[in-house]
Amino acid sequence: MSEYKKKFILDEERIPKAWYNIIPDLPAPPPPPLNPATMQPAGPDDLAPIFPPSIIAQEVSGERYIEIPEEIHQIYRIWRPTPLIRATGLEKALDTPAKIFFKHEGVSPAGSHKSNTAVAQAYYNKLDGTTRLATETGAGQWGSALSMACQMFGLECMVYMVKVSYHQKPYRRSMMQLWGGTVIPSPSDQTNAGRAVLAEDPESLGSLGIAISEAVEDAVTHPGSKYALGSVTNHVLLHQTIIGEEAILQAQDADAYPDVVIGCVGGGSSFGGIAFPFLRENLAGKTNTRLVAVEPTACPSLTKGQFRYDFGDEAQTTPLFKMYTLGHDYMPPGIHAGGLRYHGMAPLLSHVYDLGLLEAVSVPQTKVFAAAQLFAQTEAIVPAPESAHAILVAINEALKAKEEGVSRNIMFNLTGHGLLDLGSYDTFLSGGLEDYDHPEAAIAASIATLPKVD
Amino acid sequence: MSEYKKKFILDEERIPKAWYNIIPDLPAPPPPPLNPATMQPAGPDDLAPIFPPSIIAQEVSGERYIEIPEEIHQIYRIWRPTPLIRATGLEKALDTPAKIFFKHEGVSPAGSHKSNTAVAQAYYNKLDGTTRLATETGAGQWGSALSMACQMFGLECMVYMVKVSYHQKPYRRSMMQLWGGTVIPSPSDQTNAGRAVLAEDPESLGSLGIAISEAVEDAVTHPGSKYALGSVTNHVLLHQTIIGEEAILQAQDADAYPDVVIGCVGGGSSFGGIAFPFLRENLAGKTNTRLVAVEPTACPSLTKGQFRYDFGDEAQTTPLFKMYTLGHDYMPPGIHAGGLRYHGMAPLLSHVYDLGLLEAVSVPQTKVFAAAQLFAQTEAIVPAPESAHAILVAINEALKAKEEGVSRNIMFNLTGHGLLDLGSYDTFLSGGLEDYDHPEAAIAASIATLPKVD
Repeated sequence: MSEYKKKFILDEERIPKAWYNIIPDLPAPPPPPLNPATMQPAGPDDLAPIFPPSIIAQEVSGERYIEIPEEIHQIYRIWRPTPLIRATGLEKALDTPAKIFFKHEGVSPAGSHKSNTAVAQAYYNKLDGTTRLATETGAGQWGSALSMACQMFGLECMVYMVKVSYHQKPYRRSMMQLWGGTVIPSPSDQTNAGRAVLAEDPESLGSLGIAISEAVEDAVTHPGSKYALGSVTNHVLLHQTIIGEEAILQAQDADAYPDVVIGCVGGGSSFGGIAFPFLRENLAGKTNTRLVAVEPTACPSLTKGQFRYDFGDEAQTTPLFKMYTLGHDYMPPGIHAGGLRYHGMAPLLSHVYDLGLLEAVSVPQTKVFAAAQLFAQTEAIVPAPESAHAILVAINEALKAKEEGVSRNIMFNLTGHGLLDLGSYDTFLSGGLEDYDHPEAAIAASIATLPKVD
Repeated sequence: MSEYKKKFILDEERIPKAWYNIIPDLPAPPPPPLNPATMQPAGPDDLAPIFPPSIIAQEVSGERYIEIPEEIHQIYRIWRPTPLIRATGLEKALDTPAKIFFKHEGVSPAGSHKSNTAVAQAYYNKLDGTTRLATETGAGQWGSALSMACQMFGLECMVYMVKVSYHQKPYRRSMMQLWGGTVIPSPSDQTNAGRAVLAEDPESLGSLGIAISEAVEDAVTHPGSKYALGSVTNHVLLHQTIIGEEAILQAQDADAYPDVVIGCVGGGSSFGGIAFPFLRENLAGKTNTRLVAVEPTACPSLTKGQFRYDFGDEAQTTPLFKMYTLGHDYMPPGIHAGGLRYHGMAPLLSHVYDLGLLEAVSVPQTKVFAAAQLFAQTEAIVPAPESAHAILVAINEALKAKEEGVSRNIMFNLTGHGLLDLGSYDTFLSGGLEDYDHPEAAIAASIATLPKVD
């Protein structure tokens, strides 16, 4: 048989038993969130109405490693370890001397990395006595993962789904319902926030900002309820580090430790998840791996935003976070990678980027879909449009290696499969996809409204 | 960490290197197909217009093992070995002393076991100089797998897709197109067969029988073209035996060799694929594993059909095969497990069943979907409706073990995921699913038309 291995798995015993918290290893601590009323650092108490104590403890933890409870590990093991796959078909098509590997998070039952934190959040909420979780979902990837996780731990799950997606993505809705989730098109008549929007515009198609407001209000007004978030916060990035911890072991098994690790960024959790364990090795002086975050040109928070205090949501109900932001008023064009349309970037990832420890690049969606198609045709797997941002940059890196005549180990994070995004592929294949100019003016206008803190 | 393993994989080196051909191990040879014009046994020459020489050689082979070429193995290794997963969540929900394991074929990029034979057929056609393959697809699972495989080997792929599915399942169509397949709604104006149907009924929604006729006609009228079939024939069952070969090794690793192996049957290839390697061990006197085929009550070829010579298609263009059949005129009700609506059963599987080496049972779809939901809620994975037939019987076996107070190792074949079947789940969840009475009269009428051969 052949001389190379195609796929690197891990025995179950080698699945990492702890998540990695990068904060104590950083050369400087991340700036604290601020209470917008007092402009003083927000503490655990500010989070208590919406998160349970164990999650808040993780959000502010200074411990380097946090053990993964056995109950979570049992569920992880349905799909974890996710394979590290060598993209030999893609390498051949590019005729590159580089070795390309991808970490395939799309093998999870809900189809993306989101399950890694959904299971953890459901577990800790259950432990702390929560009986019901409320959340929002745009395209549906996060709502699916949380519905699944709540089902596993016997929690009720309320998902406020942006109305336009609710109607356009019935498969995502059915998936959540199959896992016992209650899916409510937002704006709804279930909350004051929703009713206010409907009073003004009964035909409103909704937005993620409105859905967040509804979910938070739902959580604080129902006994036994808490709120769950699918990206951005420290605890979410923490839970995602299992991706990078596994990938390091698998890269060692492959004898191909990466020269560069590439991932897409929306809120930043999957990228933090794969990058931080590799960054730990860099910070310890053992390696010098490039870490490249890829965002859409339509929503370029790292490459065109400012590192400023801003609200996490459009309705200004959250604490202020210091993060790379386009301004909470910024409305990105309706690109097909729905998961990459957040106006800001995870504060922890923003801080690490500000420290100069990461690279960032933005790419347009037509090139992203062309890269996705080449990947599907050479590696068979249909990637999520979000993940395909990383594929495009991996291809560019492989072509650069070819040009330079050097071998190089390239790893990227395949955060999810695209089986529920085939409608977007149809648009691409029929020539209906377009790019957007860098929305400089819209970004400037939105950033101009930010509170002056620094 | 916990005392049990959740998932059994295999090192790549242990992926089986040969397919298993059960024919030489059977106590009697299977009856030959007949040329319907002469009523004499059909030989390789009868198949030459539609299949390439290497495939025909496999169709009639007497070798026990056929080596898997390295080029096929390389592509298999994108998703193979498929995991054998212990259904601990389902066991707990059933409170059974039985151990339940499932072989997860849904991890393949096209979403089902069909890829196992699609890749092999594309490879051998390429080897024999074919430049273009034509096939039919109903629900789209087979057409997807073949489009993917043709793309990997640089073959053109023409898929005649039953028109009603073409419009109802746009995601399946986009998937085939993404992989470079040309998808034509059938009946079409591309063939005499299609034009004849359209002349009579321009609004025809098509049927699998018509699509087969179009694909065969397309193959024989285009230079460099051959026809490919996704189930029923010996070579397809052969390619699927990689499922059972892997499962035996994994069951040994789990120290839980199955007392019973359960799989759904439509054309019979996935079930032959998992069952035949276990049957080899039975025939050698080493084991006594029960092998249970599960079919829908709406299309009960093994449990209500007759073991008779019949045509493989409605239009009577194929050789006559001795098989369990409901008659080629039989039109099953429009159940949601679209892959289990074939009027006959693979001749080789039929012969093995006739020898008394298998069990068969039929189940109604409302119970099947309820079992699928319980599985999704306890094991997180959304199963294909086809696969859920096996889940239901596995649950019944586990409950029987509980009643009898005995432990037992139960294995079933999860042939595919249900992510592109969520529309059917929606019908189930909203209470719109119904069962059909055993269609005794329709079966009797259809069987009455069969040629008298025996």
